[in-house]
Amino acid sequence: MAAAKNAFYAQSGGVTAVINASACGVIETARKHTDKITNVYAGRNGIIGALTEDLIDTSLESAEDIAALRHTPSGAFGSCRYKLKGLEESKAEYERLIEIFKAHNIGYFFYNGGGDSADTCHKISQISEKMGFPIQAIHVPKTVDNDLPITDVCPGFGSVAKYIAISTREASYDVNSMAKTSTKVFVLEVMGRHAGWIAAAGGLAADADNDIPVVILFPEVEFNQDAFINKVKEKIEQYGYCSIVVSEGAHWPDGKFLAEQGTRDAFGHAQLGGAAPVVANMVKDALGHKFHWAVADYLQRAARHIASKTDVEQAYALGKAAVEMALAGDNAVMPTIDRKSDLPYVWDIGQANLEDVANVEKMMPKEFITEDGFGITDACRRYLTPLIEGEDYPPYENGMPKYVTLKNNPVAKILNTEFEI
Amino acid sequence: MAAAKNAFYAQSGGVTAVINASACGVIETARKHTDKITNVYAGRNGIIGALTEDLIDTSLESAEDIAALRHTPSGAFGSCRYKLKGLEESKAEYERLIEIFKAHNIGYFFYNGGGDSADTCHKISQISEKMGFPIQAIHVPKTVDNDLPITDVCPGFGSVAKYIAISTREASYDVNSMAKTSTKVFVLEVMGRHAGWIAAAGGLAADADNDIPVVILFPEVEFNQDAFINKVKEKIEQYGYCSIVVSEGAHWPDGKFLAEQGTRDAFGHAQLGGAAPVVANMVKDALGHKFHWAVADYLQRAARHIASKTDVEQAYALGKAAVEMALAGDNAVMPTIDRKSDLPYVWDIGQANLEDVANVEKMMPKEFITEDGFGITDACRRYLTPLIEGEDYPPYENGMPKYVTLKNNPVAKILNTEFEI
Repeated sequence: MAAAKNAFYAQSGGVTAVINASACGVIETARKHTDKITNVYAGRNGIIGALTEDLIDTSLESAEDIAALRHTPSGAFGSCRYKLKGLEESKAEYERLIEIFKAHNIGYFFYNGGGDSADTCHKISQISEKMGFPIQAIHVPKTVDNDLPITDVCPGFGSVAKYIAISTREASYDVNSMAKTSTKVFVLEVMGRHAGWIAAAGGLAADADNDIPVVILFPEVEFNQDAFINKVKEKIEQYGYCSIVVSEGAHWPDGKFLAEQGTRDAFGHAQLGGAAPVVANMVKDALGHKFHWAVADYLQRAARHIASKTDVEQAYALGKAAVEMALAGDNAVMPTIDRKSDLPYVWDIGQANLEDVANVEKMMPKEFITEDGFGITDACRRYLTPLIEGEDYPPYENGMPKYVTLKNNPVAKILNTEFEI
Repeated sequence: MAAAKNAFYAQSGGVTAVINASACGVIETARKHTDKITNVYAGRNGIIGALTEDLIDTSLESAEDIAALRHTPSGAFGSCRYKLKGLEESKAEYERLIEIFKAHNIGYFFYNGGGDSADTCHKISQISEKMGFPIQAIHVPKTVDNDLPITDVCPGFGSVAKYIAISTREASYDVNSMAKTSTKVFVLEVMGRHAGWIAAAGGLAADADNDIPVVILFPEVEFNQDAFINKVKEKIEQYGYCSIVVSEGAHWPDGKFLAEQGTRDAFGHAQLGGAAPVVANMVKDALGHKFHWAVADYLQRAARHIASKTDVEQAYALGKAAVEMALAGDNAVMPTIDRKSDLPYVWDIGQANLEDVANVEKMMPKEFITEDGFGITDACRRYLTPLIEGEDYPPYENGMPKYVTLKNNPVAKILNTEFEI
């Protein structure tokens, strides 16, 4: 039997309501196998923590605090936006990582992120082999954008989808109440610069019992102002009001985002604004209706208070599976969610090779968007509905959710050499 | 014993997560006293429904659907922004109301709204007396702005406060995770044009277990750009990040709202934007940090999914009390929440005369805002904390909250005369 080694775990890119549930799955599972995994070191602020030898000793956290990660949003160890490029271009970084892993007897690398980190994870597996200190590199999927291939869904997405679907329903009830004499149009801006998965979730606000007019602006559909205004006009004539969900990635045929409105402030500086006010003002100019608009921004991806139970379970299960795959000797792989059926939603854990995951972006399929380009089809609804199923409320104290803040004590440095990031 | 009469109930102004809980309290209580209150007629779209003789027959709604109002946000009968002015100025409207009430044998008027509707309610009581068809007019308080006097709190506010406190905490955890290499500043814009109660709730994101830097911009405090930038700089130096909660009513010393940024679009039109992007860009210009911003808008007042249990209970209790006061012969009054103690929060129902309520706006007291003008004091915390206590989750189906849409069948018209609104 191979000697026990340490594991390294890091969170990468934008955090989510459930990335800590994956961390919880990794750490709790590793703690059951101390014969093979001595300790889990976490990177403080993601991969930067490895590059700067700033490791967190997770063994100093109580079982209770680790369990509380399951219901705590954000990245408990800190995340970062730091992209490693090709093996040649970023050679110094890759070599530094292997050097650190060697110094701290790290044999397992768990990287919790999106497409870029899947690529990094893959490269670390390759270079460690070449450098004669083989690391088993396992990618744990995470991204609210839901754009990773092969897996049925990416943890983080289901909870954002639930938040956006519920928020759109609630705000629609509100506008409907006010529409007779006041606001007739409500615009909600959501995340998703390239893929319209989150915007699509706004469509779930309507169902058989909730006849709500929702017009969606997807990044996958080139914006057609006339068609859009006509659609909104038609909905207002029929319902008296209209809700609009606009993706931050919605854009004109020339690729320019709706949010880039060319406005200047009093000093002539280009003004940054959202897509929502642009769309709202456009409707006002064309149809004259009073509007309200909201930009959900971080609220949507941090909303652990209304996380999808399915999402939390999957996030945990993927963290757990990553450790089990490492223990089984797997390398350069990513555990996936495999959908077996829609209704009831049955899923189990599959496995993808990282070479098939890296640099592939999963967009909304054409058959998920209605022909007019402004709504979701039944096929899309069948896909989305199970992902928001179930509630998984965090504990509360004094009316507020009780989230955990870990101690995050450092591992003693061994190399103690500077590394410029 | 007086002969039984009908009651009229209407929702007024901006709706909330719990105004329907008050409607539920009114209707369920009235249904227990059919010897005195034959039926509750609701105004379709508020007082406009009375003026146009568009009444809703609530007796046609099932007990189950009326009970479901307790967990349904928005205004189930429709609301409106339609202000009746003085008795002389709006004489035609007041006389029309009495005419309608007379035709439909309405002896009780329950008006569910804010300051303006308290005033209307008071005037209806006065004019009905004068016109020889006395109506018992009872005001049921409602406003997310929490600016009504005498009552400890206004239903609707506690749930917005809970939503803003939780959202600020969740987003702060998120920014904290990203701050090392990316976003260091998060700005959340909240409602409250005149009073900073909602903004104050953002301060609850931090507590003894959650050391979160929250800088609040109140409408009660004239904006001082240098002091603000210094405060944010100080927080970022100490914490690595900063959360900012800005009231839509935050303004410069000359009274100009921060949101009025004087920007022009490509066509030279004045551009409407929020206060959040203005504040975010201001910090970016001064300190250079990457930011994110959100505008909660309707999401905050419609967020029944995370309503405060205290708020729901109080909203219901006030609706119930309004009917009981009517049955006891009271007139031109408003049931209030009387706070008996902070911890544990003990409250009961009191009563205010409408002449003391109308046209009085309750602002944040000076001792609730810290000396630097950017935070909340312990006194404020003692006031706010009980109001967000407890969760009151709605039922869910397929991952979505199950809100009720009533049948809202009309009452047959008796007068059937046109009235121009």
